[in-house]
Amino acid sequence: MRLQNDLEIPDLEDIQQAQKRIRGQVRETPVLDDPGLRHSVACALSCKCENLQRSGAFKFRGASNAVARLRERGLTGDVATHSSGNHGAALALAASIDGRGAHVVMPENASPLKIAAVRSYGGIVHFCEPTQRGREQALEQLVTQGRIPVHPYDDADIIAGQGTAALELLESDPGLEQLITPLGGGGLVSGTAIAAAARQVKVYAVEPEGAADTVASLERGRIVDSWSPDTIADGLRAIVGQRNFSVIREQVAGVLTVSDDEIRAAMLIFWRELRMLIEPSAATVIAAVKKHPEIFSSKQTGAIISGGNIHPELWLELTSGKRS
Amino acid sequence: MRLQNDLEIPDLEDIQQAQKRIRGQVRETPVLDDPGLRHSVACALSCKCENLQRSGAFKFRGASNAVARLRERGLTGDVATHSSGNHGAALALAASIDGRGAHVVMPENASPLKIAAVRSYGGIVHFCEPTQRGREQALEQLVTQGRIPVHPYDDADIIAGQGTAALELLESDPGLEQLITPLGGGGLVSGTAIAAAARQVKVYAVEPEGAADTVASLERGRIVDSWSPDTIADGLRAIVGQRNFSVIREQVAGVLTVSDDEIRAAMLIFWRELRMLIEPSAATVIAAVKKHPEIFSSKQTGAIISGGNIHPELWLELTSGKRS
Repeated sequence: MRLQNDLEIPDLEDIQQAQKRIRGQVRETPVLDDPGLRHSVACALSCKCENLQRSGAFKFRGASNAVARLRERGLTGDVATHSSGNHGAALALAASIDGRGAHVVMPENASPLKIAAVRSYGGIVHFCEPTQRGREQALEQLVTQGRIPVHPYDDADIIAGQGTAALELLESDPGLEQLITPLGGGGLVSGTAIAAAARQVKVYAVEPEGAADTVASLERGRIVDSWSPDTIADGLRAIVGQRNFSVIREQVAGVLTVSDDEIRAAMLIFWRELRMLIEPSAATVIAAVKKHPEIFSSKQTGAIISGGNIHPELWLELTSGKRS
Repeated sequence: MRLQNDLEIPDLEDIQQAQKRIRGQVRETPVLDDPGLRHSVACALSCKCENLQRSGAFKFRGASNAVARLRERGLTGDVATHSSGNHGAALALAASIDGRGAHVVMPENASPLKIAAVRSYGGIVHFCEPTQRGREQALEQLVTQGRIPVHPYDDADIIAGQGTAALELLESDPGLEQLITPLGGGGLVSGTAIAAAARQVKVYAVEPEGAADTVASLERGRIVDSWSPDTIADGLRAIVGQRNFSVIREQVAGVLTVSDDEIRAAMLIFWRELRMLIEPSAATVIAAVKKHPEIFSSKQTGAIISGGNIHPELWLELTSGKRS
């Protein structure tokens, strides 16, 4: 762990410790490559299928690590967070395994499937208006009432937990030259960048054009905190966190953007070649690899497929272009 | 290889040789267990996800082995088969990798997705009436024209190839006490039974009630060859083969049946717990485990999830009960 502007930022050792801590609870997800997919995106691509992680997304890694760390530090009691859905469900599951309750602030326009998932793991949902400010205010109130906050991404234990996906991927496929992950709040990409740095593996991130706050923040040199997201990638609408932004600035090779139409096309490609439905947020990496042959076509690339929590009905609507 | 009534039947060594022969071409599919799934079916269940196999089904194992054996024996030229779809697509893919053409006889009522898959791998589709006799006559005609027949299940090389899925499953999870697979023509279950016999692991098979020709054949003591299948499990409508029936009689602990409604419910369970869409044929094993706690609840069980080739639109129709 190192300090930067008074913020704790995990290092490789923290990620390795997280890996030991959550082993047995978290699923070691498969890494799939496929000749048809390679052909479709013109890249030697290995996909780390976190859509097959418990709770349907990589978020269960960070949540499991954060809850285990609370236990280590003797902190009992219910946890609270804000989330577009996947972190909320993952935290509710990790908390219930640890015998705790979980309170989850969700935007009113969250995916119904994700709301149901939080509840299915015993989490209590509190709705807020779909803005960064709305989320944070509602969470502050829960904390005032005594719940232990577990931030969805701007948290050292969460970042260390998310970094375990890249660690597993690099262990199973040591020939990888670069990695790519989606970027919402930045938990996954910052953990990935820290995990990859020791191996000199480059890391790229992708934002939807309608939630490209990190690209804007990088241009301005500080976090742009007012942004009204407009994208089908419901998991990537958050504003980048401080710890996350700091790691991204130092250690991420580039932040790319893709349009919603490119995301839709990528969802279809993934289903056609690998027969899995992935959520729009996860498909951003497939879209970006296809869009940027100058970065990806000649390199062994590992993509973290972040989640598969999408109802088949919504998947059909999105891929047939019925919903804008 | 052993002979029984003049028919070649593979042994464990043939399956081990097949495993070496097809390594690198066939994907080593993940084995997933999940606490939510265990709870839903009341069984300690490990799922061998052949729905994530290349071509979307276990059939690519047998097809790869059969084509490689033709090559070893110096047989060049196009191959031909009959298939409800998955074997046809798998054979077309294996043939195209080997530089051959493939001709596939398919019933007129085959799944449109599966017809498209055969064609996407370069296979030529010949339609026939949806009966066993219709399939066989059309295949005979192709063979008369000089194509090399590769039977979808009543073939020693196909059976040996299909058995590699169970071999991998038992290697990755040596504590398994019993296995279960779907049963159509019997290629998968006969290969599985041969692979499992040396370890004293019991093998069960499942047929849909509307295609329970093997159960009827076991009762009669010989193959019932007239049966009009009526089930949503389009991959399990074939009549059991001779080699397959012989192995099933000797080495399979029991053939269970499930209704189409039980299959629909199982498709939903699998999606809810593991976020994958599987085809009705594959869901039969989940349905059977849930239906028979007296066989499954106290045993570590491995299920082979045979395929995931179903369009999300059809999956929705079937699981919401709109199509009977």
